[in-house]
Amino acid sequence: MTAVSELPLSLALPVAREGAAVRRTVAQWRAEGLRVALVPTMGALHDGHVSLVRLALTQADRVVVSVFVNPTQFGPSEDFAAYPRTEAADAVRLSEAGAHLMYAPTVEDMYPPGFATTITVEGVSRGLCGDRRPGHFQGVATVVSKLLMRAQPDVAVFGEKDYQQLQVIRRLVADLDLPVEVIGAPVVREDDGLALSSRNAYLSPGERAIAPHLHRILVEVTRALTSPETEAGTPAAVILARGEVALRAAGFDDVEYLELRDASTLAPQAAFVRGRPARLLAAVRLGRTRLIDNMAVEA
Amino acid sequence: MTAVSELPLSLALPVAREGAAVRRTVAQWRAEGLRVALVPTMGALHDGHVSLVRLALTQADRVVVSVFVNPTQFGPSEDFAAYPRTEAADAVRLSEAGAHLMYAPTVEDMYPPGFATTITVEGVSRGLCGDRRPGHFQGVATVVSKLLMRAQPDVAVFGEKDYQQLQVIRRLVADLDLPVEVIGAPVVREDDGLALSSRNAYLSPGERAIAPHLHRILVEVTRALTSPETEAGTPAAVILARGEVALRAAGFDDVEYLELRDASTLAPQAAFVRGRPARLLAAVRLGRTRLIDNMAVEA
Repeated sequence: MTAVSELPLSLALPVAREGAAVRRTVAQWRAEGLRVALVPTMGALHDGHVSLVRLALTQADRVVVSVFVNPTQFGPSEDFAAYPRTEAADAVRLSEAGAHLMYAPTVEDMYPPGFATTITVEGVSRGLCGDRRPGHFQGVATVVSKLLMRAQPDVAVFGEKDYQQLQVIRRLVADLDLPVEVIGAPVVREDDGLALSSRNAYLSPGERAIAPHLHRILVEVTRALTSPETEAGTPAAVILARGEVALRAAGFDDVEYLELRDASTLAPQAAFVRGRPARLLAAVRLGRTRLIDNMAVEA
Repeated sequence: MTAVSELPLSLALPVAREGAAVRRTVAQWRAEGLRVALVPTMGALHDGHVSLVRLALTQADRVVVSVFVNPTQFGPSEDFAAYPRTEAADAVRLSEAGAHLMYAPTVEDMYPPGFATTITVEGVSRGLCGDRRPGHFQGVATVVSKLLMRAQPDVAVFGEKDYQQLQVIRRLVADLDLPVEVIGAPVVREDDGLALSSRNAYLSPGERAIAPHLHRILVEVTRALTSPETEAGTPAAVILARGEVALRAAGFDDVEYLELRDASTLAPQAAFVRGRPARLLAAVRLGRTRLIDNMAVEA
């Protein structure tokens, strides 16, 4: 383990590069009776990630944050090469947030020559981002399994910002009996409602002004889905179609999806039913940037 | 946990039906500083399985044997329903062999409603049984991962009889960073050379008389592959073709494959090269029964 050299000494955060080092450190903590959390990230850390670390600190005595831009979850035409990498700044943020260890493996260490294994989670991976990003959730499921097996935490924290990813991971952990508790953390937003995302850095000032309308329209659609109008029989499809029109009118270049789904199985819902938790999920394009957001639909 | 009621009291072996029970017992053993081995089986235990337990006992202080006929590794036209199930006899054998716990989950416990996850190991799963039994190694990789995650042993023992399976599991464990050591155990044979297999019970007396020729011919082909003839330039394909003719002449109804492969990657080998460990693998049909066998090709 090495300390990131750019850090002031007072903020020195241990950084592990190899799985064996993480496993050793975590095993030692657990042998001391300490509870350990893992927060998997792709770096480019913002306040949303910091909120995950803070939540993890309420659940565990030691918090490991992995920083790994996982190539296998990016499609060939996606932004893997361009994805922001800000390791020194990330280490400062994590140190300030109270994390205990940063785990930043190399691609070669995660996927050595001969690597040949893929985990597929059916069902929750279908539709939404699963259709738009073929292979994405296989990449996610496989790398998350590896990170969990390497770090062996008691608990792992994932943001609800990537809601479908969270449900894929819940299903994966249940199905493969991975010995870890999965916790979802609420979306963190700017004052104007825009969900924090590393990809917000791609937005031009004009696009940045349009972006918050995504959240505003999700709030409106959620309100309509749980309103007396719905109870009077208006199908979800009608309300969602209106929402899509509103998104385009607000200036988004494309609406990849705006859908009502069961909150845990992600099965499509023809209507919101009182007492059955649902989720409204959206993906839009703004210039070259893809934004996703989601909200609970409950009553 | 319950004891199998047919057992004499002196042989009572604890039987766990639920993953939580196994995990609890193993966690307790490991907390006491004991090393734990898992031997995954599909039951119908014979002396080959007993040899796995004996090897496990040399590697660990406690040995768990799982007995689970895994439906997901059988094809639709295969013998899942007919596969022999002999649980009481299995428990007696395991107790006599010195195992400490039998883990016999139900299909419903392993695959509850909503189960949706599959592990695919490319490369080593291709060709050989992988081509003849589509989905077989996905079923194997997924169930073995689950068993390893449920039992959380230090070491797991698999027979070399299912050599391709062993290489798939080695690749799986390395790729997903599963925290377990994998050990392969040598094939156990009848006096006449027939590899022990639960499926030998399917053989008629006439078929049983033909069956040992599989091993005999593998020995001959191995000898030819490592002989001066090969060094003089005779390609493996010629020797393997002769072996296939010999198998048919011996009375086997079909030769699914007879191939020379790299001993660990299972890459096809055009010739045996001194110092590069290879494996000769075969699958044949005898009436309705499918038999497999394999041998090290080394010099």
